[in-house]
Amino acid sequence: MNISFIGSGRVATHLARAFFTQGFNISQIYSRELEHAQNLAKHVEAHAVHTLDLLVKADVYMIAVSDQAIESIVQQLSITLDKTALLVHTSGSTSMSLLTKYGLRAGVFYPLQTFSMERDVHWENIPLLLEADDQEDLVQLTELAKKLSTQIYYYDSEQRLSLHLAAVFANNFANYCFDIAKQTLDRNHVDFNLLSSLMKETVDKACEYDPKTVQTGPAKRHDQNILDAHQLLLQQQSQHDHLAVYQLLSQQIIMRHQT
Amino acid sequence: MNISFIGSGRVATHLARAFFTQGFNISQIYSRELEHAQNLAKHVEAHAVHTLDLLVKADVYMIAVSDQAIESIVQQLSITLDKTALLVHTSGSTSMSLLTKYGLRAGVFYPLQTFSMERDVHWENIPLLLEADDQEDLVQLTELAKKLSTQIYYYDSEQRLSLHLAAVFANNFANYCFDIAKQTLDRNHVDFNLLSSLMKETVDKACEYDPKTVQTGPAKRHDQNILDAHQLLLQQQSQHDHLAVYQLLSQQIIMRHQT
Repeated sequence: MNISFIGSGRVATHLARAFFTQGFNISQIYSRELEHAQNLAKHVEAHAVHTLDLLVKADVYMIAVSDQAIESIVQQLSITLDKTALLVHTSGSTSMSLLTKYGLRAGVFYPLQTFSMERDVHWENIPLLLEADDQEDLVQLTELAKKLSTQIYYYDSEQRLSLHLAAVFANNFANYCFDIAKQTLDRNHVDFNLLSSLMKETVDKACEYDPKTVQTGPAKRHDQNILDAHQLLLQQQSQHDHLAVYQLLSQQIIMRHQT
Repeated sequence: MNISFIGSGRVATHLARAFFTQGFNISQIYSRELEHAQNLAKHVEAHAVHTLDLLVKADVYMIAVSDQAIESIVQQLSITLDKTALLVHTSGSTSMSLLTKYGLRAGVFYPLQTFSMERDVHWENIPLLLEADDQEDLVQLTELAKKLSTQIYYYDSEQRLSLHLAAVFANNFANYCFDIAKQTLDRNHVDFNLLSSLMKETVDKACEYDPKTVQTGPAKRHDQNILDAHQLLLQQQSQHDHLAVYQLLSQQIIMRHQT
């Protein structure tokens, strides 16, 4: 099976390498920047192209670009591409209908993970969310997915959107809380490594139990002395953004745990 | 060495049990509710009391109660207690001066972790933050701490406050983000377990690198399509609290990563 990738960022890179490792033939890598396409292409024995009309026939085209770039790419591909090809995007929050409305064989292949260039991906534990307009295409995507992961799920575009939204809270916003924590410690000359054990325990508990039931802290206890002391420290250190987060989240935790 | 505990909640329970396991003699457990004191006392072969004037001589008294209850307890103890005893509190955000101002031999023994009754504690990896007014007392607290953990730190009350504040972001607020994520999935009939691998990777990356450098997501990329789609979904599902969190944190992430 031939796979070509539209995009050469983090998701495209990790996916193309994983499929290449599994023995698939990676045909072409497209990026607007030829150099970016070449960087990935050389690792997966593919050809690099930087205009969409240079894409040749493949069994599956995987679009792994930023969400806002998907539509214009699909529009162009709907003109130049062989209509018998299966076109798949890898986005959590983009509906499959964005592909089907151009009359293309369409599917979604969404890996639920946060990807970094510098870290290896352990695909076997990553949930893959699949969707396809046609039952045969879904079987084909399932075959692809099974080569990477044991966790394969079928949710529709609306549920996948809610999952991506949840992932923004669980990953992006949790990480931003860690970022604020580190800034707080840096400012006060305390080592961020002290928080590692606490952060790991936080996730382990939230996964093992319901996060609501393992909520702790001064807001949960409605310990006004501590809430005041923390807000005073943030004020004294002119951290108005962090103070706004402290106040909003504390207020919501108090409301949620009111008995 | 004799240790008595003022308090019988989560921190008192885990600490008393850990010291008991290490061969220390736990003399008395105080709680306003005698039954609570008895519940802990029976596990550590201690005596339960429910008025402070029943406390007998011990080498160290550990106050592990909610922050807002500490001062009134110290006030009472300063009248009834033998002034030669070492009085220690286990709070992150309470200054040691709250003890010293009553003319007591004072110290702090703050374990940086989130404690639950239903989970065992792996003390060896938990940072213990020590403080004492007197050098000899600090040596004594260090001896105690070494029996539990390999990670012993000496920070003053102000740095400890900043650490507790950072822990509120890294633990309480991150957990609240997980809570919102779970509510989002529950509402849309998607399994929360799908997020486990992502949540673990989030923490591992933030610990290994700087959380700022591993920030990802639509706000980081300033992907307005997705930001709009997520806010629309929250609006449609009448999640006004969650929407407020989404907007505030996205806005701050955009600002922080503006180039």
